[in-house]
Amino acid sequence: MLVVMQEGATEAQIQAVIDRMVSLGFTVHRSTGVVHTVLGGVGPADQLDTADFEVLDGVKEAHRIMSPYKLASRHFKPAGTVIKMGEVEVGGDQVVVMAGPCSVESREQVLRIAELVARAGARVIRGGAFKPRTSPYTFRGLGEEGLRLLREAADRNGLLAISEVMDQTQIPLVAAYADILQVGARNMQNYNLLREVGRQSKPVLLKRGISATIEELLLSAEYILSEGNYQVILCERGIRTFESYTRNTMDISAIPVVKKLSHLPIIADPSHGTGRRDKVLPMARAAVAAGADGLLIEVHHEPERALSDGAQSLRPPQFEELMAQLRVIATAVGRRI
Amino acid sequence: MLVVMQEGATEAQIQAVIDRMVSLGFTVHRSTGVVHTVLGGVGPADQLDTADFEVLDGVKEAHRIMSPYKLASRHFKPAGTVIKMGEVEVGGDQVVVMAGPCSVESREQVLRIAELVARAGARVIRGGAFKPRTSPYTFRGLGEEGLRLLREAADRNGLLAISEVMDQTQIPLVAAYADILQVGARNMQNYNLLREVGRQSKPVLLKRGISATIEELLLSAEYILSEGNYQVILCERGIRTFESYTRNTMDISAIPVVKKLSHLPIIADPSHGTGRRDKVLPMARAAVAAGADGLLIEVHHEPERALSDGAQSLRPPQFEELMAQLRVIATAVGRRI
Amino acid sequence: MLVVMQEGATEAQIQAVIDRMVSLGFTVHRSTGVVHTVLGGVGPADQLDTADFEVLDGVKEAHRIMSPYKLASRHFKPAGTVIKMGEVEVGGDQVVVMAGPCSVESREQVLRIAELVARAGARVIRGGAFKPRTSPYTFRGLGEEGLRLLREAADRNGLLAISEVMDQTQIPLVAAYADILQVGARNMQNYNLLREVGRQSKPVLLKRGISATIEELLLSAEYILSEGNYQVILCERGIRTFESYTRNTMDISAIPVVKKLSHLPIIADPSHGTGRRDKVLPMARAAVAAGADGLLIEVHHEPERALSDGAQSLRPPQFEELMAQLRVIATAVGRRI
Amino acid sequence: MLVVMQEGATEAQIQAVIDRMVSLGFTVHRSTGVVHTVLGGVGPADQLDTADFEVLDGVKEAHRIMSPYKLASRHFKPAGTVIKMGEVEVGGDQVVVMAGPCSVESREQVLRIAELVARAGARVIRGGAFKPRTSPYTFRGLGEEGLRLLREAADRNGLLAISEVMDQTQIPLVAAYADILQVGARNMQNYNLLREVGRQSKPVLLKRGISATIEELLLSAEYILSEGNYQVILCERGIRTFESYTRNTMDISAIPVVKKLSHLPIIADPSHGTGRRDKVLPMARAAVAAGADGLLIEVHHEPERALSDGAQSLRPPQFEELMAQLRVIATAVGRRI
Repeated sequence: MLVVMQEGATEAQIQAVIDRMVSLGFTVHRSTGVVHTVLGGVGPADQLDTADFEVLDGVKEAHRIMSPYKLASRHFKPAGTVIKMGEVEVGGDQVVVMAGPCSVESREQVLRIAELVARAGARVIRGGAFKPRTSPYTFRGLGEEGLRLLREAADRNGLLAISEVMDQTQIPLVAAYADILQVGARNMQNYNLLREVGRQSKPVLLKRGISATIEELLLSAEYILSEGNYQVILCERGIRTFESYTRNTMDISAIPVVKKLSHLPIIADPSHGTGRRDKVLPMARAAVAAGADGLLIEVHHEPERALSDGAQSLRPPQFEELMAQLRVIATAVGRRI
Repeated sequence: MLVVMQEGATEAQIQAVIDRMVSLGFTVHRSTGVVHTVLGGVGPADQLDTADFEVLDGVKEAHRIMSPYKLASRHFKPAGTVIKMGEVEVGGDQVVVMAGPCSVESREQVLRIAELVARAGARVIRGGAFKPRTSPYTFRGLGEEGLRLLREAADRNGLLAISEVMDQTQIPLVAAYADILQVGARNMQNYNLLREVGRQSKPVLLKRGISATIEELLLSAEYILSEGNYQVILCERGIRTFESYTRNTMDISAIPVVKKLSHLPIIADPSHGTGRRDKVLPMARAAVAAGADGLLIEVHHEPERALSDGAQSLRPPQFEELMAQLRVIATAVGRRI
Repeated sequence: MLVVMQEGATEAQIQAVIDRMVSLGFTVHRSTGVVHTVLGGVGPADQLDTADFEVLDGVKEAHRIMSPYKLASRHFKPAGTVIKMGEVEVGGDQVVVMAGPCSVESREQVLRIAELVARAGARVIRGGAFKPRTSPYTFRGLGEEGLRLLREAADRNGLLAISEVMDQTQIPLVAAYADILQVGARNMQNYNLLREVGRQSKPVLLKRGISATIEELLLSAEYILSEGNYQVILCERGIRTFESYTRNTMDISAIPVVKKLSHLPIIADPSHGTGRRDKVLPMARAAVAAGADGLLIEVHHEPERALSDGAQSLRPPQFEELMAQLRVIATAVGRRI
Repeated sequence: MLVVMQEGATEAQIQAVIDRMVSLGFTVHRSTGVVHTVLGGVGPADQLDTADFEVLDGVKEAHRIMSPYKLASRHFKPAGTVIKMGEVEVGGDQVVVMAGPCSVESREQVLRIAELVARAGARVIRGGAFKPRTSPYTFRGLGEEGLRLLREAADRNGLLAISEVMDQTQIPLVAAYADILQVGARNMQNYNLLREVGRQSKPVLLKRGISATIEELLLSAEYILSEGNYQVILCERGIRTFESYTRNTMDISAIPVVKKLSHLPIIADPSHGTGRRDKVLPMARAAVAAGADGLLIEVHHEPERALSDGAQSLRPPQFEELMAQLRVIATAVGRRI
């Protein structure tokens, strides 16, 4: 903790701040400058809110100097985490493509899509069985039947399966069928859910909330790690800005930023990040060019009949074209698909 | 649904859009202009994603013309909803002030604060027993003991009590002690929780998420209403913008906007909205001047010792000064405290 | 300047940073902690970009400890600035209301509006003669004739006049007719214009850009002050956020924030801040309740015939109702209209 | 213009809206639905503010159906514009890299950098002679001497030169030395400047403002085109969001969006878009992968001695590495460097 006193702060004000820091367990180092006095504090915990100091008399500003997350930081673990699931490794040389329908809708649908994405080079099939929807009046998924079909589609095509858990009560069910548990953007700060997936032995895909800072994303990952589950994959899927032409603004720069701050792998979801099929290809290419460890992409053989998110689902030929482009781009950054 | 075709859209493209609309149950009205053809659709449901149409060939843009929420709309219920809890009415003439500590910390603390806020004119005591915290390493509340103390403090001072539920499993416990169930900003789109509080017989305070639009707030309210609970109080508590001097930017204009779109009462939380004690007074005054039905304010008799959010908690004399100012401002807008 | 070294930074890295700071003229104070080494620098100039240090090897983060603006800061001049123009004082006890049409359209229009706003209590008439417009195909003002009419309307009604200057070449002309020179939001960082109005002897109203931080607003004011013109009035008029229901989101909290950081008066423009007539009243009340020194409001006797911004112009009876409400609210904050 | 009436709007309200539309020159087509009446208007001009209709009694919402820009639209000119400058073509097969220092600082500096960027494959040298700076106390460029040196450096290395004009009075001077006139982000809505560069015979690089929507960027381009200068290159350089880890958030998706809406070429500036050297490479790769027609990159042989923006300037070996990566990525999207 660094506390910068205001120009002209009195000795009594400075002492009061020092006393407060000491009472909280900090060892304080005082540096008296010509204009500002600066107090440096080293303490047993750096979880304090800097605002607590900024409201004290005579204080100009306070800065935390230790990151609020530990286990998720690159400093804690300098080597990048590689999550191994059979032959698939997320965070290694390979750019892992996870593709499939937004929602599992029928056996025929999911089997057909699984076959085509596997053939094009995807390693994981995605498909929702429990769907969080903004309106209470829309399709909310097939539930367990959807999970069962997703599993069958994965097994028939040598794929892994990923599906979303909407709250902690659904974990046992989803974990019985899926290889990766997905925590959606709206749940990024559902702390009871984070804790509970932190107690599972399966990898967790954690999506960035649409208004979450990168620091908050890493703090949410910390919740999972602090319960013992180190297999966390982060996912950038767009943040909310004033630009309304795209549904969200994909923050591609979050990919290199996370790579610097954390050892955890990070993938990108250009389907939710853009909301429009024709923007998925350029943004998927951009994500891989920027260093993403993988992609999460919605594909549907009949997007105009999809029960959810049809507008952002690629048609099969588009997916194949994308995979061909990604193979070239991956080589430019020393990766492979 | 209104679909505007691109300049130069072919007859085949127009027919394809009409066919798609008809297949979804819409009655379509075609209007051929000099430049653009416009298709108006009236349908059994207006929950469709406009993006589904915007990706069709030849389409320029699509607009939904019916609000996606119904029960929460002012049109559905022109008169403003008044939520009666004993002598307290939220949404009526009175501006209802809910005040108290961020977290219940001890019996002495909550009794003392309850007494002083009651004396100053508050009608409801707030106090968290389960605290959602960004970091996994910080204080997370006293749990049931906190609820018991909050209830005692309320009863001794003739106050109602409000406390937060973090997930649906906590509802029975919180409902056993509190008069109003609070759904926090991070849970605004936790749909399973919304559904479950929608089945309760107690009023619900629903906070706007920090990146939620007003339409999304009303859609979340719709989840609660659609389960049968019409006692919903909305709460503006700041949105996330680029300005970093304040923790969030309070969207005061959301108050008159909600008043126009919905019949539900709306209050403001200037403590979380600003994060700084010295900004709470001006923003509380602004909210009442703009027409808020109430306020949610953090007060602590020793904010520097508070276990959470001390920096934004008012000291007792500040709260008393605020109440005096609010009494004057309320008269300017035809209300009373 | 405070530079926090990374955990594990080498002695060579630390020395390199110290050498760089010394070469830039800083006196460096080193504080070696258990985890982090912190370097405090006091220098002849604190205009350096902290990013220049953050890219050095071994550096975790850098913080500027002196505000980048000086003349605009409350520390430089603890007493609030009061700008006197005849009997009108901006920044004193009185809340000064500036009202009038968006654009001067005709003699009859501006005379009629001037008379009614004067009667209702406004002290300054506003009216654009040069209009910045997003589209090249819309009305851009009457030019000098508009200024002449504005002056006549002001003089006949005992009002001061304010009008916008779009670039430095227009200053002599506008200054010949108006009492206050307005710099619009789009020009907040037009530095050549800021410098030139800084050389005038008339007060300047400086509007916050829609994506400007408060610090940037004060730095733009610093440009004007640094040229010798200390008569600067700041104006909050809404920032751009993801919420699209209102044209912009008025940042009411900017009012108390500016009051703390700077001695300059600040007023609010709820007309541009909301874009809708029915939202102007609540937001004008909110601004005064939060401590604004004045208001800038668009009024038109026939808003449906206005050549620009009719939708946000108050009708005369609305303006009168607002003035009555403001008289009550002003007393709650120790002010008068 | 489409006007949607509220549910329950009266016949008198509907007639009043129709009358208003007709008085403005619209031909109105009425469509009476079960719930909503919709009025479609075709008019001589579609520059009206939709807010003017939304404040009329009984109106729910209004939508503009024609784009407010014409000359800049892809519909007006379906084939992409290619701007030819000698052998360099912006908007064609080649991805054009413009590189150089933030500011021209000395003859030695600019000659040295020009030589190295030319050798690595850049076709245009950039370098500021007039610098817009947030603070009035920082370096503001060498002026004409800087332009002269930039020209010399370009000519010696077979490069074109680009430099910024800060206001219309500087145009003759900058145009005497530079091949491309740059309009900076802060000036994107400086309409008098836009008009004046629109009267020049040289290509203009127009940067997106940090809070400008894509539509506003195209409207600013329209200003230039409407004066007769069709050689406009757009530039994405980051927008302002809540994420503070990067200086701005580069909106990579703006590249495919602009490609769809407009025929004008668009390039990206990852130096200003990120503010940090180590983020420039991934974001430059991402921009080309997403379809950018070129890049604007800051390079300095001694970035720690740069007088401005050193933190975001690439070192020469980084620039060479980037060019090698871009050559691979360009092939994936059918382009070449």
